[in-house]
Amino acid sequence: MTITGDLLIGARDVPAKAGFRAIDPARGEAIEPVFADAGPGEVERAAALAAAAFPTFRETQPEERARFLENIADRIEALGDTLISRAMSETALPKGRLNGEGARTTGQLRLFAQMVRGGDWVEARIDTALPDRKPLPRPDLRLRHVGIGPVAVFGASNFPLAFSVAGGDTASALAAGCPVVVKGHPAHPGTSELVGRAIREAVAQSGLPEGVFSLLTGTSNELGGALVADPRIMAVGFTGSRAGGLALMRIAAARPVPIPVYAEMSSINPVFLLPSALDARAETLGRAFVGSLVLGAGQFCTNPGLVIALDGPALDRFIAAARAALGEINAATMLTPGIHQAFGRSVAELEKHSSTELLARGLPGEGANMCRAALFATDAKTFIGDHALAGEVFGASSIIVRCADEAEMIQAAERLEGQLTATIHIDAGDHALARRLLPLLEERAGRVLANGWPTGVEVGQAMVHGGPFPATSDPRSTSVGTLAIRRFLRPVCYQDLSDDLLPEALKAANPLGLRRLVDGVSGRTDHG
Amino acid sequence: MTITGDLLIGARDVPAKAGFRAIDPARGEAIEPVFADAGPGEVERAAALAAAAFPTFRETQPEERARFLENIADRIEALGDTLISRAMSETALPKGRLNGEGARTTGQLRLFAQMVRGGDWVEARIDTALPDRKPLPRPDLRLRHVGIGPVAVFGASNFPLAFSVAGGDTASALAAGCPVVVKGHPAHPGTSELVGRAIREAVAQSGLPEGVFSLLTGTSNELGGALVADPRIMAVGFTGSRAGGLALMRIAAARPVPIPVYAEMSSINPVFLLPSALDARAETLGRAFVGSLVLGAGQFCTNPGLVIALDGPALDRFIAAARAALGEINAATMLTPGIHQAFGRSVAELEKHSSTELLARGLPGEGANMCRAALFATDAKTFIGDHALAGEVFGASSIIVRCADEAEMIQAAERLEGQLTATIHIDAGDHALARRLLPLLEERAGRVLANGWPTGVEVGQAMVHGGPFPATSDPRSTSVGTLAIRRFLRPVCYQDLSDDLLPEALKAANPLGLRRLVDGVSGRTDHG
Repeated sequence: MTITGDLLIGARDVPAKAGFRAIDPARGEAIEPVFADAGPGEVERAAALAAAAFPTFRETQPEERARFLENIADRIEALGDTLISRAMSETALPKGRLNGEGARTTGQLRLFAQMVRGGDWVEARIDTALPDRKPLPRPDLRLRHVGIGPVAVFGASNFPLAFSVAGGDTASALAAGCPVVVKGHPAHPGTSELVGRAIREAVAQSGLPEGVFSLLTGTSNELGGALVADPRIMAVGFTGSRAGGLALMRIAAARPVPIPVYAEMSSINPVFLLPSALDARAETLGRAFVGSLVLGAGQFCTNPGLVIALDGPALDRFIAAARAALGEINAATMLTPGIHQAFGRSVAELEKHSSTELLARGLPGEGANMCRAALFATDAKTFIGDHALAGEVFGASSIIVRCADEAEMIQAAERLEGQLTATIHIDAGDHALARRLLPLLEERAGRVLANGWPTGVEVGQAMVHGGPFPATSDPRSTSVGTLAIRRFLRPVCYQDLSDDLLPEALKAANPLGLRRLVDGVSGRTDHG
Repeated sequence: MTITGDLLIGARDVPAKAGFRAIDPARGEAIEPVFADAGPGEVERAAALAAAAFPTFRETQPEERARFLENIADRIEALGDTLISRAMSETALPKGRLNGEGARTTGQLRLFAQMVRGGDWVEARIDTALPDRKPLPRPDLRLRHVGIGPVAVFGASNFPLAFSVAGGDTASALAAGCPVVVKGHPAHPGTSELVGRAIREAVAQSGLPEGVFSLLTGTSNELGGALVADPRIMAVGFTGSRAGGLALMRIAAARPVPIPVYAEMSSINPVFLLPSALDARAETLGRAFVGSLVLGAGQFCTNPGLVIALDGPALDRFIAAARAALGEINAATMLTPGIHQAFGRSVAELEKHSSTELLARGLPGEGANMCRAALFATDAKTFIGDHALAGEVFGASSIIVRCADEAEMIQAAERLEGQLTATIHIDAGDHALARRLLPLLEERAGRVLANGWPTGVEVGQAMVHGGPFPATSDPRSTSVGTLAIRRFLRPVCYQDLSDDLLPEALKAANPLGLRRLVDGVSGRTDHG
C-alpha cells in the first residue's frame, strides 16, 4: 500500500494544496511524501458525505456493524510491517511498543464488535400499553438508543494507532452507528493514511455508504476549528493538550447548535504513598515508580507526575532508590520537536522555581529531541499554594511532595484538579488513612488504583479512562472501554408505533434477540 | 404549615432582603407574604452546605435513599389542600389538574425510589484479575456510577409541582445521590416553600446532612447566574425559555470548571397528518387536535404548535372541524402576566405576518391574563423559508402548514429544529410515506408518536422527554422517566482495591444484591 499524501474523502483520494511532511524525530529530518492541507471545501465535502451516510449507517444491524469493525481490524493487521515501520519513523517509538499498540488497536475494534453484536448498548426498554388504566390509559412506549450523528475525531500524537485514526474514539463512534471524519495528527500522517485506507477498504467491502469514513490532514488550527463548527458534525472526540481541548470546547459551545466535546486534556495522576506501605517497601516502590515515569518517554496521559508522601526516612529511601534508578535511564526520543521543546521549557521552569529541588535527571542523550527524565521535590505548603506546580508536564517529569503529616496529605488531595487516575500504595496499617483519602480521590479521578501504577490502561468492560475537568471535558464518560460507546448515543422513544414501523430493536418478536427491559423486567424474551 | 417567605438554607429558615410577592394571575393581584430575595451570600451558603453534604449523601445505601424519596412523597401528600389551594391561587390552574399533577409528582418520587432500590442504575461492572494473562496480566477492575456532585435545579413556571421544587430534576438528582439547591420559580413561591419544607423535614427525619436540600427564591437573573457559577455546583437542571436556557449554558461553559446544563427550552412539536389518515378522519382529528392545543392554556412543553399536511379537501375538513372546536373554547387564565403578554405579542406578530392566515380564535375572556387560543395557516414554501414561523409560541397557538405534495412534507420535516416530540397520524395506506418521514423525525425529536397527541408525558422506564437542540441543551438525556438519573451520575473505576476498601456495590459478596456485569456476564451473583 502506497502512501500518497492525499486526503481520503469518502471513496475518493483527493489531492489538495501541498502542505507538510512528517518529521522523523530521531533524525530531525522530514520524510516523504508531502501531505495535503485540507481546506474549508474539503471539510465541507467530508461532513456532507458523513451526513448523507448517517441514516443508512445508523440503521445497519448489529451483526453487520460488528463485521465491519472486525474487517477494519483484519485490514490493519494485514498492513503488518509496512504500518509498524512507518509509525516507527514518524514517532521514534520502539517496534515492540508499536506492535503492542497495534494489537491493542485491533483488539479494541474486535471488543467493540463483540459488544455491538451483544446489543446491550441499545438499552431497549418497553413499557407496554395499559389501555384500561385509570385515570388515564398508558400508551405503548418503546425506547432505544441511536447514534448521535457524524463524529469528528482528532488523532492524538502519543498513541499513533490506539488513540488515532482507528483508535478508541473512532471504534466507539462507528460502533454507535456514527460516521467518522478524522482529523489526523500531523505528527504521523503516513501512519494515519495507511490506517485510513484500511478503514476505507472495509467501508467499501461492507457495502456501506462512502461517507462513513473520511480522513483529513493538515497542520492548521483552522482545519480542526472548521470541522468542529460544521453544522453536520454532532459530537467531537479529542485527545491532546488542555489549550487545544479548550479551544474546541469553545467552538462547539458557540455553534448555533452546540454539540458535546469529549476532550481528554491533562492529568498529573497523583500517587499517594501511605506510611506503612512506604516504610515496608520504599526501595521497591522507588524503582517501580521510575519504571512507570519513563515509560514511552513519559508521553502517556496517565504518566505519574506527582508523588505525595509523608516526609521522613522512608521517603528518603524511596527518593534514593528513585534517584539511583533514574540516573541509569537512557534518554529517549520524544514524539515531535514541539513536544520536546515544551518538555524542556517546563523542566527548566521547575529547575528555576525557588521552592523546588531537582532530585535527579536521567542520562543525557545525543540524538535529536531526546527526553532526559527529571525528578523534583517540594514541600506540601509550596505545592498547595502554587497552582503552577499542579500543571501537566508532558514527558518524563514528576514532583515529589513532602508532607509534614497526614493532614497535609489530605489537604494536597483536596487541592487537586480533576484527574484521569489517582493511586494509593497501601499496606494493612494504612487502611484508616486510605478510607479518608478514597472519597476525595474518587471525586477527583475517573480511576482509583491501589498498589500499582497508572500507566497501562486496560481495554475492557469496567475501565474508566476519563474524569473531572481538566482531565476531560466531560466526567460522565470514558474514552477507553466498552462504556465509551455511550458518548455517541442518544435515546429515542417511540409511542404507539405499529410493529411494522418500529425499528428491529423494538419489534414485539425481538428479532435481534436483545436484552430488553419489558415492564421493568430485564430479559431476552419476545413480547407479543 | 405556614408560608413565611424565608429562604430554606439547609435546616435553617433564613430571612433575607424583602423581595417580591406572588401574583394571583386570575385577579391580577399580589398575594401575601413577601418572599426573600436571595443574594450572593445565600447562594454561597446553600452551595457550601450542599458540598459538605455530598460525600455522606452519595454513599447512602439504595434502601436509605429510596426511603428518603418516599418520605418526601408522603409529606407532599400530607400537605393536601393547603398545597393545592396555594398552587391554584398562584397559577390559576384548575384543582383537578393540580391534584393530578400532585399525584404525578409523588408517583415520580416513588418510581425513583423503586429504581434506586433496584440498583441497576449503579451499572456495576467487574472485570476480574487475570494474573497469568500474556503478555501482561489483567488487574482487577470494578466500575460503578456515583453522583456527579451538588445540582442546581430551576423550577419551571408551567408545572408548579411536577417540574418544580420536588419535580423530576430534583427527584432524579436526589436519586443519584446529589444534593440539590433549588432556585424556585417566582411565579409560585408559596407552593415552592410548602414543598421545600416537606423535603427539608424528610431530610431531617432521614438523618441526612442538612445540605442535601436548600431552596432559594428571588426574581433576578443574577441569582440564577450566581448559582450556576458557584464552583461547588456540578450540574444544572432547567426547564424554561430558550433565552434563559442559553444564558445558563453560557455561564456554565465559561466557568473555570465547565459543567453540564440540562436545559429543556423550546419545542413546537410538529404533527404530521398523513393523507389516508387525514382523509379517513379529518373531523375527528381536527377536534382532537384542538383538545391537545388548548390543554392547560397551551402552556405545555409538548403543545402541538405545528401541523403539517397535504393541502386539499381533507385538510379543509380538518380545518373546518378545528375552527368550529376552537370557536367554542373558553379563554383560560395564563400562569403569569409576563407569559400572557408574550403570548399576545407572538400572536399579534403572526396576525401581521404577510403570508399567514388567521383561521380561528377561541372565545375572548373577561378576566386578567386570559389566553385566547389562536390557529393560523400558511403554505409550506413560506414555512420553509421563514425561520420565525418555527419559533415556539408559549400558549395555545398553532400553525397549519399546507403542503402541495409529499415532497414538501419531507422538506418541512428536514427543515425542523430539534423537538421534544414529533407526531404522525397514519392509516394503513400511509406506511410508505411514514417510512420516509420517521428517520427524519427520530433524528430531530426525543419522542416519536403515532396516532396520538404530544401533550401527556408518561413517567416510566421507556419515556424520553428530551431531544436535540433547541428542544434541550443535551440530546443524550431525558428529564422525565427513570433514565433521567443518568444525567447526574459519572462512572468511577477501582483497580486492585482490597475488598474492605471497595464500595458496597462492588464488594465480592455483592451485599447490595445488585445486578452486575461480571466478566461480561450479567447477573446478581456474588463474586468470590
